[in-house]
Amino acid sequence: MSVSTAALDPSVCAPLPVLGRNVTVPLVTGGEVTYAALDYAASAPALQRVWDDIAAYAPYYGSVHRGAGYLSQLSTDLFENSRRTVAEFLGCRAEDQVVFTRSTTDSLNLLAAALPANCQVFVYETEHHASLLPWRDAQVTYLDAPCTPGRAVESLERALADRDPYGPALVCVTGASNVTGELWPVRELAATAHAHGARIVLDAAQLAPHHPVDIAELDVDWVAFSGHKLYAPFGSGVLAGRADWLQAADPYLAGGGASRKVARRADGGVDVDWHTTAARHEAGSPNVIGVYSIASACKALTEAGFDNLVAREQELVSRVREGLAEVPEVRVLSLFGDDAPRVGVISFVVRGWNSSHFAAALSAEYGIGVRDGLFCAHPLVRTLLGSDPQDPGECGAPEAEPGERSLNAIRVSFGAGTPDEHIERFLRAVTELVREGAQWKYRTEDGRCVPDRGEAAQA
Amino acid sequence: MSVSTAALDPSVCAPLPVLGRNVTVPLVTGGEVTYAALDYAASAPALQRVWDDIAAYAPYYGSVHRGAGYLSQLSTDLFENSRRTVAEFLGCRAEDQVVFTRSTTDSLNLLAAALPANCQVFVYETEHHASLLPWRDAQVTYLDAPCTPGRAVESLERALADRDPYGPALVCVTGASNVTGELWPVRELAATAHAHGARIVLDAAQLAPHHPVDIAELDVDWVAFSGHKLYAPFGSGVLAGRADWLQAADPYLAGGGASRKVARRADGGVDVDWHTTAARHEAGSPNVIGVYSIASACKALTEAGFDNLVAREQELVSRVREGLAEVPEVRVLSLFGDDAPRVGVISFVVRGWNSSHFAAALSAEYGIGVRDGLFCAHPLVRTLLGSDPQDPGECGAPEAEPGERSLNAIRVSFGAGTPDEHIERFLRAVTELVREGAQWKYRTEDGRCVPDRGEAAQA
Repeated sequence: MSVSTAALDPSVCAPLPVLGRNVTVPLVTGGEVTYAALDYAASAPALQRVWDDIAAYAPYYGSVHRGAGYLSQLSTDLFENSRRTVAEFLGCRAEDQVVFTRSTTDSLNLLAAALPANCQVFVYETEHHASLLPWRDAQVTYLDAPCTPGRAVESLERALADRDPYGPALVCVTGASNVTGELWPVRELAATAHAHGARIVLDAAQLAPHHPVDIAELDVDWVAFSGHKLYAPFGSGVLAGRADWLQAADPYLAGGGASRKVARRADGGVDVDWHTTAARHEAGSPNVIGVYSIASACKALTEAGFDNLVAREQELVSRVREGLAEVPEVRVLSLFGDDAPRVGVISFVVRGWNSSHFAAALSAEYGIGVRDGLFCAHPLVRTLLGSDPQDPGECGAPEAEPGERSLNAIRVSFGAGTPDEHIERFLRAVTELVREGAQWKYRTEDGRCVPDRGEAAQA
Repeated sequence: MSVSTAALDPSVCAPLPVLGRNVTVPLVTGGEVTYAALDYAASAPALQRVWDDIAAYAPYYGSVHRGAGYLSQLSTDLFENSRRTVAEFLGCRAEDQVVFTRSTTDSLNLLAAALPANCQVFVYETEHHASLLPWRDAQVTYLDAPCTPGRAVESLERALADRDPYGPALVCVTGASNVTGELWPVRELAATAHAHGARIVLDAAQLAPHHPVDIAELDVDWVAFSGHKLYAPFGSGVLAGRADWLQAADPYLAGGGASRKVARRADGGVDVDWHTTAARHEAGSPNVIGVYSIASACKALTEAGFDNLVAREQELVSRVREGLAEVPEVRVLSLFGDDAPRVGVISFVVRGWNSSHFAAALSAEYGIGVRDGLFCAHPLVRTLLGSDPQDPGECGAPEAEPGERSLNAIRVSFGAGTPDEHIERFLRAVTELVREGAQWKYRTEDGRCVPDRGEAAQA
């Protein structure tokens, strides 16, 4: 997977309009500023286009697959057309199925429930918990954090070759790390998996919003992603790919919509004839608004020129990395090193700072929303921080300098809706906080940091 | 459970404003009419108030439980306050938990995944598939369709008393039938269940939008319902009730949000410390917009005066039943008889008519949206239609008159947003179609009925 370096088309250098772009928030230091949403990796704001599409549709909402009325027929068409739009966005093969779920987490739990008997799962410890944990009923091999993409391929090759028994296997890998933003060698991992008779699912939660994903070109068996990271935060997600395992499995949820025919048996039991289309795993009334919002986002990204969006985001990535490099107290977390291609997701620690307090100061004093913590990727972040002596990772723990050893990190993430000003404000804030300290003190309360006037007064 | 017969408060006799109330649809006979959404039992239109609340919030959307920024904190508050609003709406006990799911189907599948070992399940064959089918890993006793609420209690009493072994048991029952609209004797069934050491879950998908539900007063252990039937069609649902089974069970989905701490073990495996709050079963980023929409609907119904809404709906129910009774070709489907209390959900067949064609004519010639089919309650509808000779039900199959025997039925359903005009138009349409026939012919295509000018011209 490579990141486009095509020249920017000047007509699309502007960010795409998103909801909330004019929202102002109060500062503890007085006054208000427009909110800088730099937590896209958790949830991105809705594209204005997505919201407009939903607002235009909402009065026409009707039951999907279930009604004889005009709006039900219209809503059913909208729902099934959305499935086709997503299939096209992902470059699905003719025989692939697009199943609508609630999120990437849900998509991967669905696939986990559809594994064939005795299927072994291979997953890097560097994955988000949504990719790391769903394989509860399988024998799982956790691969150590690799220090280069090449080492990732080698360790998978070795693990697959050595598997015992040499039976059905699934590899699960992220396309772009939710911690470092670094791209994984998906095409190479897919080739390795297939060479060893295994299948592969791509967790594209962090990739799809930032980079075109082509399921056929990458030759992965499934792709999973979430609407809420793809500028469509209305409760839907996607699992797209091979139909065979999905259709051989029991329905993910049992209920209406998934059942074609239900009848009492003479012995008092119940016989169920389940659907063999995507509906098999979509029991219950579909979230048509959520699904339509994803299709709308797919169209918006495609029509804006995804390559142009990628090129613009890469400029922002470079700007953030250059800006952070000028602050010696900042250490950016990385598995694959400075030259690794990456999306707009960057995690770091600041020497001498509690990461939660730093994030709280960015919010309270600059109106900047980032995330602090372990980012639902505990083993990876602990490895990168060097805070897990039992698990230094394949490449060894980075040496912790005095005062640097943090228990968690700060993540800044951005995308198609991010204006340059948010990036410049963020870099200015980091520089000022490191050089001058925060203007207030922060303490942790109920799992969140709050500014503390009392301590500030005493400080 | 009784239906309020309080005098109508004139100030709330008007329907609540819903989205789509001014949408017009084309008629095959020429011209346009405002759409009459009479398929509330499948999916109700959004309350205008719900939409307005969401539209006001959407620019402030941020990641829930996951961010340090102002909008993340605001969104987290909104999400957790929504949980409290729903708990209050349902009259939850202090120790109950409110888990947000995607739908009633999802809620009951979650509970099915949380059954203790060797739990037996008791469910009437009259249930919606969402209540009938999720209990895949349990020993299920399907109770025959009772012909009175009293017989329902007796058959449950007998089945629970006779269960072998006399171990843990769960009863699942609907509050209001999605086919007949009839109310089930929930309080009595709960007392019966508890007298026999069993627990009970109330499927309130069709009850909650039409009638106040008080979990403590009914003394049920859990309540499940969907947003999309409660005027909040944004992809969320609820399971509320006892925490003990839920917290003893494995997390419903494995992933971030449900996991408190994840660490590699020295032997290469992974240890997970799961949450013991509602978050245990809410892995993945929450659908905050969906959840907030449910809370908004709960508030709107409460503030409008739910008893007044019930009283008004009962007037509409009476009007529909009286109007249909004047058409001898119409047979209304009922388990419990004319005097049974019921909500605004009424199914019927028309002698000499294919139900699908009748529903298509209502849509194409009158702009009325109803549903035809078996309503995801196949055993019940077949029993009511007398179309399943193997399963006549406890009370025997209704006698089929010549030409009456339908393979499916027509359902009209309505609620807080339904204006009188929709009901009057529906009754006029039924009368005209039965007396004069449809103006066009209808044929079935791709699972839906479409008007056929060619056949009409030949007719």
